[in-house]
Amino acid sequence: MVVFKRTHTCGELREQNVGQNVTLSGWVHRARDLGGLLFIDLRDRFGITQVVLDSAKNKELYELGQKLRAEFVISIKGEVFKRKDANPKLPTGQIEITANELHVLSKAEVPPFTVADDMTEANEELRLKYRYLDMRKGPILDNLVIRHKAMMATRQFMDSQGFVEVITPILSKSTPEGARDYLVPSRVNPGQFFALPQSPQMFKQILMIGGLDRYFQIATCFRDEDLRADRQPEFAQIDVEMSFATQDELFPIIENLVQSIFKHCKDVAVDAPFLRMSYADCMEHYGCDKPDLRFGMRLKRLDSQAQASSFTIFHDILANGGTVKGFTIKGGADISRKGIDEYTSFVGQLGVKGLAYIKLQDGTFSSSLAKFIAPEQQPEWQKALEMENGDLAFIIAGTTKKTNQALDHLRRRVAKDRKLIAANDYKFLWVTDFPLFTYNEEEGRLESEHHPFTSPHLDDIDLIEKEPLKARSSSYDLVLNGYEIASGSQRIHDSHLQDTIFRILGLNEEERKMRFGFFIEALQFGTPPHIGVALGFDRMIMILVETEGIRDVIAFPKTQKASCLMTGAPSEVATVQLKELKIATT
Amino acid sequence: MVVFKRTHTCGELREQNVGQNVTLSGWVHRARDLGGLLFIDLRDRFGITQVVLDSAKNKELYELGQKLRAEFVISIKGEVFKRKDANPKLPTGQIEITANELHVLSKAEVPPFTVADDMTEANEELRLKYRYLDMRKGPILDNLVIRHKAMMATRQFMDSQGFVEVITPILSKSTPEGARDYLVPSRVNPGQFFALPQSPQMFKQILMIGGLDRYFQIATCFRDEDLRADRQPEFAQIDVEMSFATQDELFPIIENLVQSIFKHCKDVAVDAPFLRMSYADCMEHYGCDKPDLRFGMRLKRLDSQAQASSFTIFHDILANGGTVKGFTIKGGADISRKGIDEYTSFVGQLGVKGLAYIKLQDGTFSSSLAKFIAPEQQPEWQKALEMENGDLAFIIAGTTKKTNQALDHLRRRVAKDRKLIAANDYKFLWVTDFPLFTYNEEEGRLESEHHPFTSPHLDDIDLIEKEPLKARSSSYDLVLNGYEIASGSQRIHDSHLQDTIFRILGLNEEERKMRFGFFIEALQFGTPPHIGVALGFDRMIMILVETEGIRDVIAFPKTQKASCLMTGAPSEVATVQLKELKIATT
Repeated sequence: MVVFKRTHTCGELREQNVGQNVTLSGWVHRARDLGGLLFIDLRDRFGITQVVLDSAKNKELYELGQKLRAEFVISIKGEVFKRKDANPKLPTGQIEITANELHVLSKAEVPPFTVADDMTEANEELRLKYRYLDMRKGPILDNLVIRHKAMMATRQFMDSQGFVEVITPILSKSTPEGARDYLVPSRVNPGQFFALPQSPQMFKQILMIGGLDRYFQIATCFRDEDLRADRQPEFAQIDVEMSFATQDELFPIIENLVQSIFKHCKDVAVDAPFLRMSYADCMEHYGCDKPDLRFGMRLKRLDSQAQASSFTIFHDILANGGTVKGFTIKGGADISRKGIDEYTSFVGQLGVKGLAYIKLQDGTFSSSLAKFIAPEQQPEWQKALEMENGDLAFIIAGTTKKTNQALDHLRRRVAKDRKLIAANDYKFLWVTDFPLFTYNEEEGRLESEHHPFTSPHLDDIDLIEKEPLKARSSSYDLVLNGYEIASGSQRIHDSHLQDTIFRILGLNEEERKMRFGFFIEALQFGTPPHIGVALGFDRMIMILVETEGIRDVIAFPKTQKASCLMTGAPSEVATVQLKELKIATT
Repeated sequence: MVVFKRTHTCGELREQNVGQNVTLSGWVHRARDLGGLLFIDLRDRFGITQVVLDSAKNKELYELGQKLRAEFVISIKGEVFKRKDANPKLPTGQIEITANELHVLSKAEVPPFTVADDMTEANEELRLKYRYLDMRKGPILDNLVIRHKAMMATRQFMDSQGFVEVITPILSKSTPEGARDYLVPSRVNPGQFFALPQSPQMFKQILMIGGLDRYFQIATCFRDEDLRADRQPEFAQIDVEMSFATQDELFPIIENLVQSIFKHCKDVAVDAPFLRMSYADCMEHYGCDKPDLRFGMRLKRLDSQAQASSFTIFHDILANGGTVKGFTIKGGADISRKGIDEYTSFVGQLGVKGLAYIKLQDGTFSSSLAKFIAPEQQPEWQKALEMENGDLAFIIAGTTKKTNQALDHLRRRVAKDRKLIAANDYKFLWVTDFPLFTYNEEEGRLESEHHPFTSPHLDDIDLIEKEPLKARSSSYDLVLNGYEIASGSQRIHDSHLQDTIFRILGLNEEERKMRFGFFIEALQFGTPPHIGVALGFDRMIMILVETEGIRDVIAFPKTQKASCLMTGAPSEVATVQLKELKIATT
């Protein structure tokens, strides 16, 4: 006796179905008793359909209906009628169903928050604890469906390009580099541990060494880090690697992949090829390595103008290797004195002491620097800043690092304040030629800017031992609207060079062998040149569905304390479990 | 200077390409120096192409070629020529390339075993340690490509049926039930642990409670068990769940999924609908719950014939609730006395004391039971065993369990010996209505036969408390050629019934709350009836590619000691890592 087998979903019936006998199953969204007539909004993921129980036609059924409460799961049979008062807000608003059978499939306790849309939003903790109720509200399931579509589009596209999806191990080897590993004690090998992979990096390179040629995977990766709003302990990445190829082959593939995802999920046509800019140019023109190109306000270098001014602070900064830079806000002359003060205090929070400005209004040059800039020098400043009448420019002086940082923040802040960002605008940028190393001041040692498998830039091989911080790498990021959404590199395919890099990174021979020995050995048996990239899948979906919380695009996310409020994970475990693993808590 | 950008793979060139200038990159498979002429077999995943270096045309290149060794990675440019002596074994055998450029991209040490196919097989440990070299030999990469195709077919089909793929957490809650959990210590919550999921069971049910309607996932699952040849600590399953549905909706979907996979990966047309048989009938007719239907020899019950015989051992066994069963081998009368002795000793190893036989040859009835069966009873035995002239039947008596077990093994052994199994024959069977519980004699308690979320059979609800071992469940397995490849059930959607099942399983209120409290609570807020299944993906691929080792279809498998010989995982970790996790080894 199957009473719940549906003929239609709750989002499907239209005027052309009038007269049909149908079976619907779903949740009681709302019920309204108008005395003798009971109206039920029956809901599933696909929509809402109005069901009518008429006591004049079927008193028993009407009385059963009166016992329904919100979120009961029911199944109804009935006939589709045209509604007298159509509801234009609902796709099914033209029809209603007069029920002649009703079965309660599951009762429901009063939920901790109302699923019906118009109620006040519950707090996030409660929504995470009762994730299944939050799902019924709509947006989360919609996001999961878009995520599914993006995975389908990814796989179809990569398959069409000859890439083979390979599942790499989750129970993997600990090679701490960068983030902390999650560890898994081995029962069979007491005292030893697996690590959950921070990425399938070495496995995908091994697959190239094995001759797979083109690999991809939507891979789950793990990092035991302190979480930020857009981070999760486990996350998904579209992981790609290909042999005998360079950027010129890889970039178009990734561009077409992104186009396919955006087309498939959001019907947005993304332009390609994407712009490319070197890391050095990015820092010069935007002060950061992930510029948001949806708006202008490129940074201008004003070193020579500052040198020619009579401002001794500028002279001192320049003499110490610092810089003077600024950017122009079109029509920004309308920013008030108070506004300028607010921006000054904004950059002050970033550790910058002063914010200079130049205003060009009604043909008049006014500036906080006026007394240091001779009238004949004013056109030089205007020209360098590409100022026109009605514009305002902000200028900061200091160390290159701090000046860039502050101008980057200020630029983004101004764009937000002045609403310079259009909706549905997707600006992609390849940032290339990152430095090979950065200097970790805390630990007093070199670190890989990207990761230790990244090939040095072919022109900079000679620098890596002599002046490592000047060496560029053959690496790149893909930036979308100010977010880094992908990162990759040409890989080292020479075991000697790989070993050298590990040595420069400060790993002694023992460490190199323990952690990476198998990989350095693998490189020795005939490794093809290869290149790859990893796209942050969760983050891309987050941008696609226009939310700012990574938790909105993950079915069962963890809190910032890395716990699952729904299941209560992590939790204490039985002593016998720890005993079998030969570990103890301390 | 990109020298390795290919115009073609090594498996691509044909006679119609003669005269073209091409660039190929790959591995030196073999090189033969005929004195002035050097022939290189250049290999990649796609094939082998012959390259010629002619010292008369280019002495320098020839001399460079002489330095090549096996597994060097090289790139060559040259012209395609028609071969004088075509090699019919190679798809590219009609052509060869006369090289005019050659670049060594990577040298190679002498590998621990030769990649070229005709060399002796290396032992498995060495092949696992140098997995990347083993991959280059061929079959493993081919298996990975078929695996990829099967994943693509799965996703395309499930998507077409409205199923949404959702990634469920790997860092999950420990709910030990059945197998051992892999545990992950939490740094943020010291003393607490995540568990790696044995299956996404509760998450997928929660997704149904959340209203997703149709879910699937190719999910990685984990079991810390002692491994057998076809088990791995981490494995993949096609995980499916759907709401408002029963077997009659689910079975055709899974049948069409399997058809799609077999068609897509092997161009095999699988017949559907699949046969269905109850667990009870399976045990009766095949003595096991995963019968191989590629051959006949169904078991026949001979209780009444045995009772009518004069054999007191039969009488005793029947009086003690045992049984007498057997099966007939068509044309088996050719089995010699020695053959019968071997089968007798085979079942002896399974703990069965005797193996009786009946032979019908040249119209003569002969049997080890001859003196106990009166001539007028002989036709009864022949009829029950469906014997014809030239047949032989084997008969076993004992407890139902042991008799079934022995006859099942014997039946499979005979099929193998007599080569009754055709190649490329795929026989599917749904086995339904499993018992709800089994009795764990060691622990003296009831266990779920399937898992505790399985709904009792609707007709047997009354039995679950009174006579639990007699209650059937609404569960089913999908069997292929004697392997269980899928398992599923209608789920309990009533929180009270779910709680009752946990109670019958011996969990006290505290345990129920600790382990499953969140799930029992979730069931209370309006749970749709739902049903699901999980297909063992690795095992299905194993059958598809006709190998008997699960490791052959996994990129980086673990040994039976649950370790990875390539990376050395699991391994010891730094003390600081354990300190941060607040755990110690004991």
